Amino acid sequence: MSAARSPHPATPSRKWPVAILGATGAVGQSFIRLLANHPWFEVAEVAASDRSAGKSYREATHWLESDLPARVARLTVGRCDPALVQAPIVFSALDAGVAGDVEAAFARAGRVVLSNAKNFRMEEDVPLVIPEVNASHLAALPVQRTRRGWRGAIVTNANCAATGAAVALAPLQAAFGIEQVFITTMQAVSGAGYPGVPSLDILGNVIPYIGEEEEKVERELPKLLGGWDGVAFRPASFAVSAHTNRVPVEHGHTACLSVKLNRRVTAAEAQDVLAAWRGDPSVMGLPTAPEQPLVVTMADARPQPRRDAMAGNGMTVTVGRVRRDPVLDLRLVAMSHNVIRGAAGGSVLNAEVLAARGEFASP
Amino acid sequence: MSAARSPHPATPSRKWPVAILGATGAVGQSFIRLLANHPWFEVAEVAASDRSAGKSYREATHWLESDLPARVARLTVGRCDPALVQAPIVFSALDAGVAGDVEAAFARAGRVVLSNAKNFRMEEDVPLVIPEVNASHLAALPVQRTRRGWRGAIVTNANCAATGAAVALAPLQAAFGIEQVFITTMQAVSGAGYPGVPSLDILGNVIPYIGEEEEKVERELPKLLGGWDGVAFRPASFAVSAHTNRVPVEHGHTACLSVKLNRRVTAAEAQDVLAAWRGDPSVMGLPTAPEQPLVVTMADARPQPRRDAMAGNGMTVTVGRVRRDPVLDLRLVAMSHNVIRGAAGGSVLNAEVLAARGEFASP
Amino acid sequence: MSAARSPHPATPSRKWPVAILGATGAVGQSFIRLLANHPWFEVAEVAASDRSAGKSYREATHWLESDLPARVARLTVGRCDPALVQAPIVFSALDAGVAGDVEAAFARAGRVVLSNAKNFRMEEDVPLVIPEVNASHLAALPVQRTRRGWRGAIVTNANCAATGAAVALAPLQAAFGIEQVFITTMQAVSGAGYPGVPSLDILGNVIPYIGEEEEKVERELPKLLGGWDGVAFRPASFAVSAHTNRVPVEHGHTACLSVKLNRRVTAAEAQDVLAAWRGDPSVMGLPTAPEQPLVVTMADARPQPRRDAMAGNGMTVTVGRVRRDPVLDLRLVAMSHNVIRGAAGGSVLNAEVLAARGEFASP
Amino acid sequence: MSAARSPHPATPSRKWPVAILGATGAVGQSFIRLLANHPWFEVAEVAASDRSAGKSYREATHWLESDLPARVARLTVGRCDPALVQAPIVFSALDAGVAGDVEAAFARAGRVVLSNAKNFRMEEDVPLVIPEVNASHLAALPVQRTRRGWRGAIVTNANCAATGAAVALAPLQAAFGIEQVFITTMQAVSGAGYPGVPSLDILGNVIPYIGEEEEKVERELPKLLGGWDGVAFRPASFAVSAHTNRVPVEHGHTACLSVKLNRRVTAAEAQDVLAAWRGDPSVMGLPTAPEQPLVVTMADARPQPRRDAMAGNGMTVTVGRVRRDPVLDLRLVAMSHNVIRGAAGGSVLNAEVLAARGEFASP
Repeated sequence: MSAARSPHPATPSRKWPVAILGATGAVGQSFIRLLANHPWFEVAEVAASDRSAGKSYREATHWLESDLPARVARLTVGRCDPALVQAPIVFSALDAGVAGDVEAAFARAGRVVLSNAKNFRMEEDVPLVIPEVNASHLAALPVQRTRRGWRGAIVTNANCAATGAAVALAPLQAAFGIEQVFITTMQAVSGAGYPGVPSLDILGNVIPYIGEEEEKVERELPKLLGGWDGVAFRPASFAVSAHTNRVPVEHGHTACLSVKLNRRVTAAEAQDVLAAWRGDPSVMGLPTAPEQPLVVTMADARPQPRRDAMAGNGMTVTVGRVRRDPVLDLRLVAMSHNVIRGAAGGSVLNAEVLAARGEFASP
Repeated sequence: MSAARSPHPATPSRKWPVAILGATGAVGQSFIRLLANHPWFEVAEVAASDRSAGKSYREATHWLESDLPARVARLTVGRCDPALVQAPIVFSALDAGVAGDVEAAFARAGRVVLSNAKNFRMEEDVPLVIPEVNASHLAALPVQRTRRGWRGAIVTNANCAATGAAVALAPLQAAFGIEQVFITTMQAVSGAGYPGVPSLDILGNVIPYIGEEEEKVERELPKLLGGWDGVAFRPASFAVSAHTNRVPVEHGHTACLSVKLNRRVTAAEAQDVLAAWRGDPSVMGLPTAPEQPLVVTMADARPQPRRDAMAGNGMTVTVGRVRRDPVLDLRLVAMSHNVIRGAAGGSVLNAEVLAARGEFASP
Repeated sequence: MSAARSPHPATPSRKWPVAILGATGAVGQSFIRLLANHPWFEVAEVAASDRSAGKSYREATHWLESDLPARVARLTVGRCDPALVQAPIVFSALDAGVAGDVEAAFARAGRVVLSNAKNFRMEEDVPLVIPEVNASHLAALPVQRTRRGWRGAIVTNANCAATGAAVALAPLQAAFGIEQVFITTMQAVSGAGYPGVPSLDILGNVIPYIGEEEEKVERELPKLLGGWDGVAFRPASFAVSAHTNRVPVEHGHTACLSVKLNRRVTAAEAQDVLAAWRGDPSVMGLPTAPEQPLVVTMADARPQPRRDAMAGNGMTVTVGRVRRDPVLDLRLVAMSHNVIRGAAGGSVLNAEVLAARGEFASP
Repeated sequence: MSAARSPHPATPSRKWPVAILGATGAVGQSFIRLLANHPWFEVAEVAASDRSAGKSYREATHWLESDLPARVARLTVGRCDPALVQAPIVFSALDAGVAGDVEAAFARAGRVVLSNAKNFRMEEDVPLVIPEVNASHLAALPVQRTRRGWRGAIVTNANCAATGAAVALAPLQAAFGIEQVFITTMQAVSGAGYPGVPSLDILGNVIPYIGEEEEKVERELPKLLGGWDGVAFRPASFAVSAHTNRVPVEHGHTACLSVKLNRRVTAAEAQDVLAAWRGDPSVMGLPTAPEQPLVVTMADARPQPRRDAMAGNGMTVTVGRVRRDPVLDLRLVAMSHNVIRGAAGGSVLNAEVLAARGEFASP
């Protein structure tokens, strides 16, 4: 965000206090890093498992990257209980094992929960949102509230591997229509959290399996690129086949995609469509929105995780090697930062979209 | 090779002297390692570029792995000229830039050339051989000799990434017929030779591009799995789409494959077919032949290059994660040692097949 | 072990049954690999924590490397209780947290315990043995038994980082006398067991700290290179300063050593002494003994863990870059396999020495 | 540099044009990155080998990291000839093979050369400068000009491994006096330039040798921490023993140091001295000067290259594990960014110091 940019019209006069659930884990730490100097949100509360509760955040956390913000370091870690947490906006980095009950409890208690967990992603009234791709899905929130009797709400973001692919496919779906998707991923170890993947397993190695990951990619992509018809989500009609692999990379998931479209296109046509895409205009200018959600590289050997993952401060998906597929129509490589765009950064951007739409009471 | 195994009937009373062309490079070194104690062949001559000629092999070579056999270390490196090389059998690890002319000159001069270079692979009268898969293609040699007026011959082995895939696909092609293949590879750095991939490019990174590799995989697979009709090779009729990637792995190429078959099969049917496959029976028992050219693993997270590349002394392809593909029919992961099965070991096995067929005069 | 070598005179007519304590962990697995075809010992029992007890070894274990021997896979994991374990010889891969009590209980119950744990290493009546270096320390066993009232005994092997250094220093101590040792290690991740070092911590990184490791190296080296005077161990009189680091290497600890000697020596003198050293003659020819416990390389850039760790099947320490030290006398680099020479292999060799000395009743 | 900081008094009204020699290599690229938005200097000319001359910089360069600044991309690469280069200030990233003659020619032609090459570092009238440590050495320039008859001058920066160590040792030398230094380094692959270290050599490996590196560290440290007496440099009187190793790390050299001091100190005393040190006050506030040239970490397992190399935008040396040495007095670990602080960034800071001293005519 350049200093010159004038503040977004939705910028509040005072920051909204927010809570982080699962604050001590790897994704929780990313929330704290990304919110450290956020113009709209301030981390007021951190909550985690009972084992951490009562300790200072510094004590409770094996901090992984860069500097732990001093203000957060001094916060006392609380329990993940809506009766004990004040903040109206809650970022959830909880494990799937507990996220279901806890996130529902917070929504019931009137909080807006931005969730990274898989639990609610495929629910028929819960938006699964990458806002440049499908901010329109947020229209489901009133239905969610009515149906479930919640005063708050849950908005989920997608699996980290599905996210980069969805951004790369969204312009193609819009321009040409997609019929089939073959995707093979090479995923960074940070996607498995901390301690996550043992070094004895991954040094100089490839692990051709990530538990449940292929299923997530296959079911989330059609929902992400589908629509909301006022009553339910209508998934896009294409089928997806996913191979997911772990590789010895720190950050950045790479996906090789072969795509069948509704009509024949040249590589140049596809490149133009991808390069011109800016996504939902309501997202532009938000504090965490990158200048471009998708950048096309023409270099032979890009995108690469180590060199491109931090494009747009980790929020830009880099697409390269757009070329004809000898079997289907098009193939390409998409690379995105799994912890930022694919997890915490995506949630923060979702919260900003909600704020810009007036979903939160003035802080 | 267990000591108990009785010698193959083709075992010669004296070893054939062989020459290595391009002996100082990474693949050349692999030939020397694999032939160090070979029961049929003995490295009698080493040849390389003019820069190395005249030096001892030890001096001329930056030896990479394990111990340089003392006898070879003392050989004087010669020039790649059939007038200066005696051996009737020649293993070529030459770069494509020079392999074309040099290999043809050796064939013309009556030598049988086992080539790792791409130059002749797609020629209509040159066999491209993984012997368990298509030893029958060697029937093209008389035609090759007649057409080209060569007293010798050229037999090529396949691209290292195509090799593992071909072995995994051969049983499926035979049992069910293949219509489409999507393949995404994660290839070891040793595939690029030495010095090869700079560490600054690949440490903690993925490079989604290997020059010409996708084209090789796409055109070699149909030739490998096709037939020889007495006049020309008839490629198999399936189409291939390949994504090839470099990953920070030392040895072992991993391939994720999605396959459309002529008929619907269950994962169990496919596993059975793969597990039962032994390949061309004339290969069994040859000195370099593994007990099984293909092993199926049922473990969740295998095959892995670091843990499985040396299966069958590097000659066995390990296949895992055989499962239904949600778009096509079947998907699976194939992993093989790119330097052994995919390069030098494949050439040696081809030479053994030729020897067993009586292609070489008694040494 | 070449097939031609005639059997060691101590070879028993039947194998001794042995038990592995802590059998499911990384070092436990190494015992099972190393003992899979051992001519003297047979893994008859496997014991581990209560969590694993009652399961088959295959079920209880996340097997890491190569193939799990089928016979061991079927063993039922027992508890680490001498009342439930029959074997007279016990290899302990237990964590330090439990090793103290358990190993003592086994020794009290008449078993000979070969321990990898730190607990007893520095006890005044417990030998800390690298047999080529100090097999003479085994003379302490009768004193140990008398003092402690044990029918069995405990023999420990050294810390994995201390082991390679001790082998490299032993010839220098014998020939020249050592006054000071500066050692900086670069240690493989397998030294931390499994799951051990998280990949997020070590990929592309160096961790300049390993808990308690420097203390172990500093106190074990003088004991290893010291003597047994019939009553107590007399540590060698040199002082040691150790820096220990973790690096992204799978197997093989590298140590840079600067050494002050009792007298000035040239690099060539030191190389000769190191190259000529064969260690305690009683060790030669034992099944796990390498042809040479120490090999000197003259190559510029060796030893290297990936290229030299498996020298002597992982039992040979490779020493290189022997040169004058501009401040002290000598400097050199020593590299050894931390899991084999530095852990399980060292214990097995210790057991073989005991067997050859007649410490075990006929099986 | 925070926007709030008021400009340094030496800030020129117009930027000085500068030239980069050896602009296409890895260090040359770092100069271009570091100078992209420099407030005082502007890259006006790029020069390299004859092979590159005449091409645009973009064409001539295999650009490695982040984005190539568009303005520089369009520059035409020139020859390294002072007759063809206008800029009064010249940053040299030349290889030692050519740096000697070329840098001297530029100095003779009146240019101030900031050199990364080893050629002139140990000359008796050429300053070897890490300005926080020994900006006072710049007083040698008039003597250099007089002696050599140069209108320009050469100022060198130190070897990348010596640099971090010198910063860590400078406060100890000042406070306590140093007698002996033992240093073992673990150096990043970027220190070898591009293509540099082959991945086949370094993946999962340690290479215990870097050509000439130990000699550089041993002779440069005493010069860096010594004085200029008006006629010649007087090296500090301590002796240095260096082991230098290459490890699979991208950026950041780690050094383990054991130090003998003139008097006994506690770890706490040493920590206080290190933490309080700010270096030569004339450096503070310069555009490339970090807030602190040295930061002391109290964390157990720090500094680490991947987590600490970018401290102070790559210009801060992080020191940790300051503790008593059991043989000498003190030991500690120092880590610094080899390409920024240890190469291009160091040169830029040297140029800023010269500018602040009025060494350059107004641009």
